[in-house]
Amino acid sequence: MISNFQEIISKNAKGMKKSAIRELLKLVKDPEIISFAGGLPAPETFPRKELISIVKEVIEQDGAAALQYGATEGDDKLRTLIMENYKELGFDITIDNILITTASQQGLDLLGKVFIDRGDKVLVGLPSYLGGLQAFNAYGADMIGIKFDEHGMRSDRVEEVLTDLKAKNDMPKFIYIIPDFQNPAGVTMPEFRRKEILALAKKYDVLIVEDSPYKQIRFEGKDQTSIFALDNTGQVINLGTFSKIFLPGFRIGWVIAHKDITDKFIMAKQGTDLCTSPFVQKISAKYIEKGYFNKNLKHTIQNYKEKKNIMIAAFEKYMPEGVTWTNPEGGLFLFVTLPEYMDAQDLFLKAIKKKVAFVVGSVFHCDGSGKNTMRMNFSYASKEQNQEGVKRLAQVIRESMR
Amino acid sequence: MISNFQEIISKNAKGMKKSAIRELLKLVKDPEIISFAGGLPAPETFPRKELISIVKEVIEQDGAAALQYGATEGDDKLRTLIMENYKELGFDITIDNILITTASQQGLDLLGKVFIDRGDKVLVGLPSYLGGLQAFNAYGADMIGIKFDEHGMRSDRVEEVLTDLKAKNDMPKFIYIIPDFQNPAGVTMPEFRRKEILALAKKYDVLIVEDSPYKQIRFEGKDQTSIFALDNTGQVINLGTFSKIFLPGFRIGWVIAHKDITDKFIMAKQGTDLCTSPFVQKISAKYIEKGYFNKNLKHTIQNYKEKKNIMIAAFEKYMPEGVTWTNPEGGLFLFVTLPEYMDAQDLFLKAIKKKVAFVVGSVFHCDGSGKNTMRMNFSYASKEQNQEGVKRLAQVIRESMR
Repeated sequence: MISNFQEIISKNAKGMKKSAIRELLKLVKDPEIISFAGGLPAPETFPRKELISIVKEVIEQDGAAALQYGATEGDDKLRTLIMENYKELGFDITIDNILITTASQQGLDLLGKVFIDRGDKVLVGLPSYLGGLQAFNAYGADMIGIKFDEHGMRSDRVEEVLTDLKAKNDMPKFIYIIPDFQNPAGVTMPEFRRKEILALAKKYDVLIVEDSPYKQIRFEGKDQTSIFALDNTGQVINLGTFSKIFLPGFRIGWVIAHKDITDKFIMAKQGTDLCTSPFVQKISAKYIEKGYFNKNLKHTIQNYKEKKNIMIAAFEKYMPEGVTWTNPEGGLFLFVTLPEYMDAQDLFLKAIKKKVAFVVGSVFHCDGSGKNTMRMNFSYASKEQNQEGVKRLAQVIRESMR
Repeated sequence: MISNFQEIISKNAKGMKKSAIRELLKLVKDPEIISFAGGLPAPETFPRKELISIVKEVIEQDGAAALQYGATEGDDKLRTLIMENYKELGFDITIDNILITTASQQGLDLLGKVFIDRGDKVLVGLPSYLGGLQAFNAYGADMIGIKFDEHGMRSDRVEEVLTDLKAKNDMPKFIYIIPDFQNPAGVTMPEFRRKEILALAKKYDVLIVEDSPYKQIRFEGKDQTSIFALDNTGQVINLGTFSKIFLPGFRIGWVIAHKDITDKFIMAKQGTDLCTSPFVQKISAKYIEKGYFNKNLKHTIQNYKEKKNIMIAAFEKYMPEGVTWTNPEGGLFLFVTLPEYMDAQDLFLKAIKKKVAFVVGSVFHCDGSGKNTMRMNFSYASKEQNQEGVKRLAQVIRESMR
């Protein structure tokens, strides 16, 4: 081994930290722990039987291509199916606007690779998705957190920050927004707020990154038009994924953007992993073509709706005064706020002893705030566990209160 | 769209170029063109029947885990099987030294991410693998090409460059070597040369990256011990992949390194794509466990050996005086040198008209040299095509000669 490994690594690598979520995911392996920690879909939503017959068909009919290297931009059939789906959502796009990625996390990584030099500013939510923060951090981004109100990222704060950065000639590379059932906050941004921020982006000539992995998992309320579709000029880069609405184990996501941007992302992806597995892409395309996708998603939404309602009911029944939580209209998470004086990190260690896990909210805050918050996933555990886990957690909280 | 997209992209993204190979791969779609361009395995080596039954088994017995998110470091069963295989090759490792990557290209990308700041030096072969050059270029590496002799990278040149860089206090981050059936040169580095370069790496306290995707595809001659196994102290990072010896469409590779390095790579991978598809990892593990892997590889080696021999025979029969070529003991490529005055790029355009394709050698040279060289793949086309394609190419070369 060389003598100075920790010294010769890149500046960006020196700033990398192990993911708290990843470390927590390891806990899920203890079968006695009820875990609300990961953002895992429920295994009962995986369409095993259909997959077996589809895989057989893909290998028999298209094996030479499915098992070979594929194009960097992705399988044309899958890109076409995704395009058609988004056109229904008001996206003015062709297949050339779509790049298939090795799940959404690669889309976030490519954003860093293509846009971020060390020290570049990026606007993110307070809170925001940990995987996004990690990906941008890996390129040395300087993240500026934008506070939330009940409609998500505050547009007045966005304007303040943009004005300030413009004066300093240090404009951010993009504004990172998760508009639908935000991870971790569970908030959905209404259309008027989307339009406000889009108008600011146009005024200040800055890109918006719209990360929307849960949009299709809506239990109630009205769908809010994607920021991409409110714009349709290329001001917005949209990220999507199958991880929550089909299968995380396939590692398939996509980036939808202006063709100039997509082209640059394709170049960047070439050096990153050459192409996403054509095997899982072709299985996914066939699965959609056969109409299984929409049918299965409907069951998934119903399942998660019931799970969320059970969790909310347990919160209402068991949680002590002073604890508040969001009640999202969709997605996978709700966000809990404890009294100011409490520290979710301390609570976490106590909760583990009672065999219940969550994610401490501070990891979603680029400025280290949010110590009295926690993220709860309601999709992975069973309905019984959702009730029992919240009961255990409420007890731990009650015992930790002054 | 924003007004200044090309200006606000990162310094590294500004230096990215489209891959010549990728553009060439598109030509393969014209069924009349005999392509020796890509590094594609032969589709007839894909074990379709066995895969169908294994996928069924994996989904039925282990579907909840196979279709879910997985650990960033990879599937433990697969890591164990890979570990056992490398132990037989003299690697002193445990499972903690192994990280599963989204094919070998991701290993190259992680090398860039973990080690390279803009302007950092990296030693590469003249020629070297284009995907490696691309990956390091994406992090702004300053690559120094080391000339070859008949044993691969010249150790005297390595020492000269290291001495020079040490004097300038600008030591390279690593020496990138493809010791077995080098891509594109087809040269295998004998053990004495491996030991010379390893001794230099130790003397100058610099890491070696050993990229070895073809090692197991040997037609004749004696296996040369891996540089990793000649060292076993952590001086060497070894990259492996299933892409040439099993299936490229699964996108599975691995990095074997000192645990401190593997740990850092795991952190870097988290932000890059979270995890490699557990689905294809579990299928691969089961495939190896059932003993199909070794059996199939034996057939693949025999197939490629015959294809290479047919190509070499065609070279001997058809090529005009003044053209030379390597005759590798394994791998997928041979490397052709034209008379000094000829330009492979011009030749390429003429060859395409005659419906035969190759890769111009200059793309493998970080200094832009090698204009009179070309890389020929012999694994993908059929035996008949290997003969016919070389015949066509020889005619184009003959007509282009003075």
